[in-house]
Amino acid sequence: MKKVIVSIALRESILDPQGVAVKGGLAQLGFTGVEEVRIGKRIELLVSDETTDTMIHDMCQKLLVNTVMEDYRFEVEEVTTA
Amino acid sequence: MKKVIVSIALRESILDPQGVAVKGGLAQLGFTGVEEVRIGKRIELLVSDETTDTMIHDMCQKLLVNTVMEDYRFEVEEVTTA
Repeated sequence: MKKVIVSIALRESILDPQGVAVKGGLAQLGFTGVEEVRIGKRIELLVSDETTDTMIHDMCQKLLVNTVMEDYRFEVEEVTTA
Repeated sequence: MKKVIVSIALRESILDPQGVAVKGGLAQLGFTGVEEVRIGKRIELLVSDETTDTMIHDMCQKLLVNTVMEDYRFEVEEVTTA
């Protein structure tokens, strides 16, 4: 098995209202040193060893990521199934 | 400035229905080698250099993370403001 971690973030050019709201919330709690907050997704997949990077890109582009608004990248870790 | 990446995931013991749905979606698209999908959050903060790790833990526990259901960890990167 392989573990794939897909990190998804809104493109830099796109406003993140959820992040703005969280920044406001932090400020109200007294955390004034926060300049920017951006909220993205982190999807963890457990896939078979036969799954190639091309297939993972395919999964991202067909289902996991809205490529118009979001950027993604992924890391693959080997998982020992002992 | 420092960049803080907070990774938030549902605790292992908690069912992730969104992940189950995504797994089903991937299977329908023909990606059958996917064993498990878990969906979490990835929050990127840009904070002042004075912000300590203790303050970041505080932000997580007071606002960003539901510590009853979620686990979190974070990484800090130095950002050069050239």
